[in-house]
Amino acid sequence: MASFLRSGKKIVAIGRNYADHVKELNNKVPKEPFFFLKPTTSYLPSGGNVEIPRGILAHHEVELGVVIGKGGREISEQDAYSHIAGYALAVDMTARNLQDEVKKKGLPWSAVKGFDTFTPISSFIPKSQVSDPHNLSLWLKINGEFKQKGNTADMIFGISRLIEHVSSIMTLEEGDLILTGTPAGVGPLNAGDEVECGLADGATEKELLRLAFG
Amino acid sequence: MASFLRSGKKIVAIGRNYADHVKELNNKVPKEPFFFLKPTTSYLPSGGNVEIPRGILAHHEVELGVVIGKGGREISEQDAYSHIAGYALAVDMTARNLQDEVKKKGLPWSAVKGFDTFTPISSFIPKSQVSDPHNLSLWLKINGEFKQKGNTADMIFGISRLIEHVSSIMTLEEGDLILTGTPAGVGPLNAGDEVECGLADGATEKELLRLAFG
Ligand SMILES: [Mg+2]
Ligand SMILES: [Mg+2]
Ligand SMILES: [Mg+2]
Repeated sequence: MASFLRSGKKIVAIGRNYADHVKELNNKVPKEPFFFLKPTTSYLPSGGNVEIPRGILAHHEVELGVVIGKGGREISEQDAYSHIAGYALAVDMTARNLQDEVKKKGLPWSAVKGFDTFTPISSFIPKSQVSDPHNLSLWLKINGEFKQKGNTADMIFGISRLIEHVSSIMTLEEGDLILTGTPAGVGPLNAGDEVECGLADGATEKELLRLAFG
Repeated sequence: MASFLRSGKKIVAIGRNYADHVKELNNKVPKEPFFFLKPTTSYLPSGGNVEIPRGILAHHEVELGVVIGKGGREISEQDAYSHIAGYALAVDMTARNLQDEVKKKGLPWSAVKGFDTFTPISSFIPKSQVSDPHNLSLWLKINGEFKQKGNTADMIFGISRLIEHVSSIMTLEEGDLILTGTPAGVGPLNAGDEVECGLADGATEKELLRLAFG
């Protein structure tokens, strides 16, 4: 599954899954999970450069990614863990100015989330190396300064519930990625900024993954 | 490319591309194309059965599908035709009641368009067998009665323009499908309905593709 970048067909990205982030954008806490699709052509492997199109205000959203190992549909919360291959650290780049417009007009989010390079992504870590996916700290720095710092313990809907919800609508396939939402601290990325992100075990503080891009 | 159903990674679906359909849903004619993503897990090969989840009002939208042969990004209108492998006939099934809700709330369209079986799709026809993609008649019947009848001549944005627009945002890959929008006549599909769709040369009336599902 280390090859999910090439083999995966879809990225299912959950919105508003950390209360502090819901608040900072003046949104409402959702009663059930919701999601949008990002194309796999938006992947940017660590070390690359995000391309910000002219006129776009691009926001960073650091997120835990869940890589599907065994596909399925109507997966129950009880079975969900067995469908996970492992994890990755990702940034759900968002054209925030365009998103504000499409939200007002009731239009889809696919374009504002789907530009090439808008999903910077780390390497893969198998689930056996993660002792508790709901106690992971994740952070994002721009030019050495912390912008986002969160813990997956604060997700509104846990990973099993997300897998149950998504697979009740669309079949999940091997290599698909679920982005589990972002904690507070989202903000703009400017040309020339250096971004570093990390994922660590929340109990031991052992670093598990790192992601860097320009 | 006859295997795009299995090999393709994304379905890019254009909204509001026929003026008569824009009007019937009380929408505004867009100034530039817009689109949403459907997952390839929503494909339903001809002969299958659409599954309508409980509580869902499912509408049919018959559309010409353009199958990408040669991938690319920032494809110009001039080059667009050389990136096309061929065509298919598809139905962009839509959970209309949920779509009305998410439009009001400014939420993404991915779920309301992305249920398993929500993209019934015909076999593939190579572009060499289509003399003019902008003079194709397409129709949809339910239980033998015409519901939609249109001609691709009436698209607001032509195929080359759509390819240019989409590929200016996200790279297109071999096997990707672009759904080019639906003419007027969309409406509900009920359990047990038999649906038949056809695509024909607009000049000669020669039938090119047929699609049937229950
Ligand atoms: Mg996000
Ligand atoms: Mg969407
Ligand atoms: Mg449509």
